[in-house]
Formats: sequence, structure tokens, C-alpha cells
Amino acid sequence: MTEVPTADTGPLAPTGVAGSSPRYVVGVDYGTLSGRALVVRVSDGAELGSAVHEYAHGVVTDRLPVQGGPRLPPDWAVQVPQDYRDVLRHAVPEAVAAAGIDPAHVIGIATDFTACTVLPTTADGVPLCELPEWSDRPHAWVKLWRHHAAQAQADRINRLAAERGESWLPRYGGLISSEWEFAKALQVLEEDPEVYAATERWVEAADWIVWQLCGTYVRNACTAGYKGIRQDGAYPSRDFLAALNPDFDSFVADKLDHVIGELGSAAGALTAEAAGWTGLPEGIAVAVGNVDAHVTAPAAQATLPGQMVAIMGTSTCHVMSSDVLREVPGMCGVVDGGIIEGLYGYEAGQSGVGDIFGWFTRTGVPPTDVAEAERRGLSVHELLTERASAQAVGEHGLVALDWHSGNRSVLVDHELSGLVVGQTLATRPEDTYRALLESTAFGTRVILETFRDSGVPVTELVIAGGLARNRLLMQIYADVTRMPLSVIGSTQGPALGSAIHAAVAAGSYRDVATAAERMGRVERAAFVPDEAGAAAYDLLFEEYVRLHDHFGRGGNDVMKRLKALRRKAIAGKQAAVTEPVAEPVTEPDDTAPAIAREARPGGEAA
Amino acid sequence: MTEVPTADTGPLAPTGVAGSSPRYVVGVDYGTLSGRALVVRVSDGAELGSAVHEYAHGVVTDRLPVQGGPRLPPDWAVQVPQDYRDVLRHAVPEAVAAAGIDPAHVIGIATDFTACTVLPTTADGVPLCELPEWSDRPHAWVKLWRHHAAQAQADRINRLAAERGESWLPRYGGLISSEWEFAKALQVLEEDPEVYAATERWVEAADWIVWQLCGTYVRNACTAGYKGIRQDGAYPSRDFLAALNPDFDSFVADKLDHVIGELGSAAGALTAEAAGWTGLPEGIAVAVGNVDAHVTAPAAQATLPGQMVAIMGTSTCHVMSSDVLREVPGMCGVVDGGIIEGLYGYEAGQSGVGDIFGWFTRTGVPPTDVAEAERRGLSVHELLTERASAQAVGEHGLVALDWHSGNRSVLVDHELSGLVVGQTLATRPEDTYRALLESTAFGTRVILETFRDSGVPVTELVIAGGLARNRLLMQIYADVTRMPLSVIGSTQGPALGSAIHAAVAAGSYRDVATAAERMGRVERAAFVPDEAGAAAYDLLFEEYVRLHDHFGRGGNDVMKRLKALRRKAIAGKQAAVTEPVAEPVTEPDDTAPAIAREARPGGEAA
Repeated sequence: MTEVPTADTGPLAPTGVAGSSPRYVVGVDYGTLSGRALVVRVSDGAELGSAVHEYAHGVVTDRLPVQGGPRLPPDWAVQVPQDYRDVLRHAVPEAVAAAGIDPAHVIGIATDFTACTVLPTTADGVPLCELPEWSDRPHAWVKLWRHHAAQAQADRINRLAAERGESWLPRYGGLISSEWEFAKALQVLEEDPEVYAATERWVEAADWIVWQLCGTYVRNACTAGYKGIRQDGAYPSRDFLAALNPDFDSFVADKLDHVIGELGSAAGALTAEAAGWTGLPEGIAVAVGNVDAHVTAPAAQATLPGQMVAIMGTSTCHVMSSDVLREVPGMCGVVDGGIIEGLYGYEAGQSGVGDIFGWFTRTGVPPTDVAEAERRGLSVHELLTERASAQAVGEHGLVALDWHSGNRSVLVDHELSGLVVGQTLATRPEDTYRALLESTAFGTRVILETFRDSGVPVTELVIAGGLARNRLLMQIYADVTRMPLSVIGSTQGPALGSAIHAAVAAGSYRDVATAAERMGRVERAAFVPDEAGAAAYDLLFEEYVRLHDHFGRGGNDVMKRLKALRRKAIAGKQAAVTEPVAEPVTEPDDTAPAIAREARPGGEAA
Repeated sequence: MTEVPTADTGPLAPTGVAGSSPRYVVGVDYGTLSGRALVVRVSDGAELGSAVHEYAHGVVTDRLPVQGGPRLPPDWAVQVPQDYRDVLRHAVPEAVAAAGIDPAHVIGIATDFTACTVLPTTADGVPLCELPEWSDRPHAWVKLWRHHAAQAQADRINRLAAERGESWLPRYGGLISSEWEFAKALQVLEEDPEVYAATERWVEAADWIVWQLCGTYVRNACTAGYKGIRQDGAYPSRDFLAALNPDFDSFVADKLDHVIGELGSAAGALTAEAAGWTGLPEGIAVAVGNVDAHVTAPAAQATLPGQMVAIMGTSTCHVMSSDVLREVPGMCGVVDGGIIEGLYGYEAGQSGVGDIFGWFTRTGVPPTDVAEAERRGLSVHELLTERASAQAVGEHGLVALDWHSGNRSVLVDHELSGLVVGQTLATRPEDTYRALLESTAFGTRVILETFRDSGVPVTELVIAGGLARNRLLMQIYADVTRMPLSVIGSTQGPALGSAIHAAVAAGSYRDVATAAERMGRVERAAFVPDEAGAAAYDLLFEEYVRLHDHFGRGGNDVMKRLKALRRKAIAGKQAAVTEPVAEPVTEPDDTAPAIAREARPGGEAA
């Protein structure tokens, strides 16, 4: 055992655990393609060691990974439960080894997960897909957050809820996503009623992994609220469910409803079996499950009302607690205790951010620039950022809409697409790149202003996630939002956030906010607005809003029509290939749903 | 001498010239950077040899090419008259040598030129810049068509003409260009009155080169009309000119007005001096000057009313004759005899076409695609065209506005800029490339429909210029316009067109139309509309028009505001560099003229 020399006791020593030997917790962050374990010191949040384990099966979109497994339909995305267990067996012991600590000093473990990632199990938590009689049935497997084949069910849920004026609908900005628990379950019922009938529990993966660790099923308040439509202690009514489908009437009572665990509570104690997998002591605290974006808030010490955390990666997820309950148009949802127990947790998002920048650097930058980057040992991002940094605000003459992956908040419409205005023959790649960076900042400002206008003011913006490293991007966000930016002090925000929950579950701190003060890390006002830049951005933001409302609120629905035309063109070509005999081709439905709930990855922070 | 074996007499033998030995003409096409001479057989238009001579001084934008020459202000572009003479001394004899003919059998020469390219001369045609006392004065030199420093003068001309309801204004679609004779001359007067006073003739280069060949100054009907505001036999009145500037009142009478030569007429006979330069026989016919785009019409056998020629290169120029006189909104101009004597010649244009495609392939295509093109021995254009050809109409899900270089017709606004709608993370370079190709076809359709709606129907579309080689582009144009496309049968349309004028001037044919029938070349209906493609394009064209009108007709003037913001940002940076002491910086005028006449290269066909 390597003793860590730093003292971990002192005037602010954690309460509730006696003794003077150093204490540690493990946070495990389950992303879309891998899981990461992080060993953290309880006293001060020091990150001592981490390890990543890739899922052997990744995301399955083609064929089920069983002998002669059937081909999956379009828009499906499933995962393999054993891959999740393997993270516990590999990443956790490796992280402990990397930290050089004695595992005996680990006092708790917590996990965060993508959401809504959900699976059917037996009453004792066995995934149906692990039972031989169901393993060749697609609906028996884990539906990953990005499984998008339940849109028809989501559309019906939304229509019916709007017609009936269901009180829970405005809590989700007016729309339920096809990614969430109800749409996905209704799809199972309607496409494979036998699997539906065999499903005794419809379980979030965030809770299933906790069940694996401690042998107890506890439904976490976060996903129950955001993904399970639990509001004010209740789910959609039996009456509502029956109106969707008579056979769906008892879905909540039979398969979904279960004891709720508040975030930061212990769900149970580590079982002997899980202790065997992880190498951690049997009986230590296992925290209630949680979601990657949401655990990041305490990791960034953003636990007070008005402190909004933007977890910026391929997409951006915004989470913020507040002491008031308001209906914010276009938000993803508001859930009592959804981030911090005792506060209302708000969530919003931008469906394309880093993804857009990545797409541009991969597909829109010519060889001379790429070669220069290589020669100078820079990434293309770094080269374009360097050049764009030399520009004055407005110098490129461009404005863009950041909808290449649709718009999650506040328009909630994945039929929208990208737009760039102002290119000339003098426009260079760094010009367009900067305009794309700026467009995502404008998108964030729209969200902030919508919260403010709805009576939920944002008082501080805290940036987490990989994009926080881009200093130009951060300065743009400060200037565009006219807010000082705080930046999280960890590159492993979700895992650190889980570790904080583990420490609270283990009793080392009285609550998550207190733990966050000791274990979280943030640099306050790391970037402050430049007045000249901010003034110029006010003008560009006006242009953005004008385009945003014109193309996003019905002024010109060209984006929807272009997507419909594209689907029709592709279907026409496919029909021509598969139907050599000229016959009337049934035209695909080219009427996009008037408003469609955008894909909402729970994996934003991954 | 190499005798060309083909007989050149027959039932349709040219009239007016006796004898049985083969007869030839030389056409000389003066572009922006070089001049090209082409030797053509009179009987059938066979192209026997050509040569190109680059201008030694190219386009001068920095310093005058004289000892200690002053630096030129922004937006200036001047040329050197001796460079034009050198084309006669080099390219013509080289073309004759390449053709392998006896120069004694050349019976005429004709030239076409960029326009409005204009210079101040003495009464006997000596350029002021060739006189030692004026050679260090920028205004003494040739102002190339793309000299853009007279916008303030053009704005005043347009405002005053509109206020006074000048009858000639609608003949130019409502706006006079800063590139034309009056704006440029007024700039000379107001910026260097001494040079203005010394100017005895204000001469189009198209006429000056003819003056050099035959010793006679004849003002050609084409540039006099399109660039010199000559309508119904008259120029803007003394009264109008005095209102612009009292010292400008006699500009027409003193410096501009001169005998007009109809196109295809002889201006005179080749002088002994010019015979010495060219190696051609003294005394042969020298045709009246002309413009590159306009001579291309007979080269493509498009001399009848309704036959519109689109000369497609970096930009596109549209020329068409008609027997009716109508005011077409946003056209460049209509001139009696401006293309074919006896018909009204209409001109319109698109300021960016091949330039836009070139910009995209240079700046927007990633290394993997460029490497594939190189490996396969293709240009990037060819690779993207090949891939785009495999797409169904609408498959890319995009629509673009082709305004990267402004809009010449029918909006006449160079403050407009490019726009692409519909990009997603799945959009590939060939998708955007195809959308850009299509956008220029939509722009052409807007022009065709505007002519039709104004009572000047277009009955045939004939394509000339380098872009005619791109078969996908041609099919797109056929589908979008729903017209069969004819394609010129020569890659040297302007030089062939000049040669046709030389043959008429020499008396070999009774008129240009007759000569065009024998000497011009066109493939009729080389591309015909595909009904399925045309139907899909009707939908996309609707989208184009909706965006065109929204961004081009005042729905959202974001493009103008972005350009103003860009100018302000750049000026602010420059001020910061040159004025290290913090002082109130005078803000540049960020109010773009409400409607500004777009740059109109005469060099479209170059």
C-alpha cells in the first residue's frame, strides 16, 4: 500500500466518519462507449487515479450480438448489460491501482449514467436479454438513450397530453422525447407484446447498475423525474395510459413505480459479489444512481439557485437548481430534487456544439491548412482557433445558426438544420469556424434569456466539459452572454461528481452541497466579458435572433421541407434499386411532425 | 505557305469578295490579363491557329509602373496601353504562324475587349499616361473595368437621375454602375482636374485598340450604349451633367461624343504601322470595336430575337437580342444595336458563378478528398461533380443563394452575400458543391423569368464559356430552367465572334447574322430537361425564390449589416494599429448605399 502523505483531516474535516486514516471514494461515469472510474480523496476531492474500460459491444445498431441474431430496424440503438458490469470488474480495480491507495480505505462508490437508457428485467433485476428464451428478441435488450425508433409513440403521447391538458406536460417545455421511458416502453408493448408481458421491471440503466452493486432496486429521483414523467410524486394516470393503448393502462403500477431514492442517499451496501468484481470492501455505501450531466453540477461547486452549469462537449447540457418552480418554454424539464435534493432542478440543452466544430474541421478545411497544422504540431481546431483569435468581433462578416444537429432548447425541433449567412469569395475556413463557435454561444444566450424571462434567473455560468479548454470559445461565451464565466477545475467532472455523491452516501458530508464545497473545484470568473466585444456581439446576437425566429418559429419552414425532400429523394433511389420493375412507388411520409421532440442524449457529458 | 486543302467556295459561298484562294480573318480577344488571337477561315469558321500574349503589367493595383510611381488608393485597378499593342505584335503573328497560313490571305481583323475599360487621350489618341508630363498621375492611366473607386460618383449619378426622372435610367434596370464611363470620368474631374482638363477624348479601350489598328477613332454602338449611356441617339443632357458638377457640363460635347460605328462595320483599314506589328497586309478591313460577351452571341449562332447566350465563366453574362424594347427590372442594360445591328440588345449577369465553385474547391474541401482526386488524376471539381452526379435532386437537403460575389441581376446589389441552408453533421463537400451549382442555375432562372415577365421572352438558352464542359452543371441548368440547352461549338467564343465581325467588316458576308450561320457553331438541345428532375427542382426553386426575396428585397437586410459590421471591425483594427494614441476614431460610413450598382465586369467571357 502506498500511503498518501497529505493529511485529510483538519478544521473542516468531514463529519460522520470517525478515525484518522485517509478515506477515499470511487466515482464511475458510464458514457456512451465506455465507463471511467475515478478514485477521489474524501477530504479535499483530490483525484488520485482513474481508468477507462471500453464496452466490448459499444453501441449495437446492426445485429443483436447472439448466434444468428436478427438485424435491427433503422434508428435502433441497443447495448449489452454485461458491458456495464465489466466496467466494474476492470476500470474500478485499475483506477484503485493507479491511485496507489489501499482499497480498504475506500468508503463508498457512486455511478452516473447516460439517460434515458432503459431495459426490461425480471422482478429480481435479471435483464430479459440475458435469459435464453428472450435473447433473440430485440426488445429484450437495453435501449440506449439514442435509440430513436419510438418517435411515433412519442408523437401520440404529446398529442394526447396536449389535448387533455395534462399538468405534467409544461414541466417538460411542452414535449416528451421519444428517448424517454414511456415512449420506449409503449414501443415494446406495440411491437413485441410478449416481451412487454415478460417485463416485470422497466429499469433505467442508472438504477440497474446500482442494483448490481448493492442488490437493491432504488429508483433515483433524477431519471424518475426527467425521463419517467414523475411530477409532484405521481406519474401519468392510468386513464391517460389507457387512452394511449388499453393494454398500457397498468404500465406504471405493474412495471415502473418503485421506491424513490434522493440524490446523494445510499441505495444500499456493496454486495460480496460486487466487492469481488471491484476489489472494494464489502458493505461500503453505494449511492443512488444519477445522470452524467447532473452529477457535474456539484463537481463544479454549482449547487446554489441560479448557478447554471453548461457541460460542453459534442453537445451541451445545461443544468441548474432553483428554489422556484416555473414553466420555461423549450426546456428539457424541471424536477424537484432533480440535481440537488430540496431544490428544483432545471435542464436544457443544445444538441450540436463540439459535434459541429468537429464536422467542420473534418469536412470543411482544405489541405494547405491541415498541412500547416500538422507541421506546427497543432490540431486543426487549434490552428483555426489561433487564426480566429486574431479577428475583431464581426470581422468575418458571418452569422450562423447552430442547428446542424437540430435544436434541443428552446425550439425543441430536430427537423431544423444549419445555416451560414454572409460568405463571400474572401471567406476563409477560420472565418466560418469562428462563426460556428459564436453561433453556439448565441444559442446559449437564447437559453439564458428564456430562463430569465420565465422567472428563473441565471446568476452564474459555469463551464464544464472538454470544450472549456478552448480559450477563444470561452471568451466568446463571456462576451456574448455578458457574464463572467466560471470553469470547472476537473477534466473528469462526471466521475468527480459521482465521487462526491459517494462521499455523501457514505456519510462523510451532511449533504451534496457541503461535499461539493470541499471536493468540487471551480475557477470563478476565469473569463470576463470585454465591453467592446460584448457590444459588437449584441449586434450579431440581434441578427442571430432574427434568423432563429424566422427559420425556427414558422417564418420560413424551409429546413423542414428540405429534410422531407431529402428523405423522399433517398427513398426514391432505394425504391429504384430494390424494385427494378417500374411500379408506383409509395411515397414516404414527407410531412415532418409539426413539432418533434429532439433527441436528448443523456450522454452529453461523455 | 501551307495551303489549306478544304474548298471554301460553294453554294453558300460568302458574297462580296471575289477570287478562289482561301480567305482568313483574325479575331483578337482582349481579356483582363491577356489577349488571344485566333485565325479563322472565312468560308466555314474553322479555327486554324491561336496564340495568347499575357499583359506584361497585368492589372496594376499597387503602384504606377513608372520610376517612383505613386501608390494607388484602394479599389483602383489600372492597365498599361502598351500591353494592348504588344498583343498585336506577338499574339497575332504567332497565331498566323500556328495556323500555317499565308498572312497575305487574311482579309480582316476585329477585336473585342473588356468593358467598361476606359482611358484619357489626346485628340489624336495618345494616352495621357504615355506623355511624360502626365505619367506619374494615376488618373492619366487606363481605368480597368474593375476599377471600383468611383462609387461615390455613381451614387450621385443614380440619385440625381432618379430625382429628375431621367428617361434613360430604366434602360439600365434603374441603376448606373460605378464601372462605367460617366462615373469614372466624374471621378477624374473631381480628383485630378488637371488631368481632366488635358483629356481631349475619353475613350473606351475597345475603340482605342481599333484606333491603333486603323488610325481612325470610331465609337462602337455597343459600349456607347451599355457603358456610355447613349440612348435613342443622345447622352445625358448638359443640364443633368451641370447639376452633378458645374465643371462636368460639357463632358459629352467636349470629350465623349463622337461618330458611332455599328457592330460589324469597318472602322477603317489596317495602317502600315499596324501591318508592321501584326504581319498582316496593310489596308485590310478593321472592324468596329466590341465587347467580349457581346461578340460571343454570333459565335454561338444566337442572333435571333429570344436566343439568350449565357457566357459562363468566373461570372456569367447574359446577352440577347430582341425586336421589342422593354424595361426589364435589374437588367444591366438594353441598347439599340448593342449586339446585332437592327435589334435591341439586352444584357444581364450573375456576378459570381465559376468563382464560387472555385472558392469552394480551394477553401472548403478536406485533404482526403483532394488526395483522392489527385490519385485518380481528377481535378477537385471533377471529383465532386462525379459524386454529386450520383445524387437524386434534393438528396443533399440543401439550398443556397449564389451571392458570394453580390448579385448583378436582377437585384443589382453587391452588398448581398452567400447563404447555405440545411447543412447537418452528415453533409459532405459534394453536397454543398452541388447546392452551389444549383444556386447559380436558380439565379439564371430568376433572370429568365424576369425577362419573360417584362415582355421579352427567352426562347432558347445557349451556353458558352468554360463551364459548358461540366455535364452535370449543364443538366442542372436544363432541369432548373425547363429549357433545352444549346452549347456553343467553340472553346474560344469571343475570339471566334470577333473573327465573324472581321469577315463582315471585310465584306465577305452581308451581315453578322449571315456570317454567324456559316462561321458560328452550336450544338442545339445538347441537354434536355429530365421531367422528374425538373419537377423536384421546381420545389427547390420555390425555396430559392423565397430566400432570394427575403434576403434580397428587404425582408431581412442582415447581409448588408454584416458587411457594414465587417468594414467597421477592420477599420477599427487598422485605426488601432496606425493610431497607437487612444483618440476618438472616426467611424467609417457603415451605411451601405440602399441600392448599389454591382460591379459589372466586361470581362465575363475572359
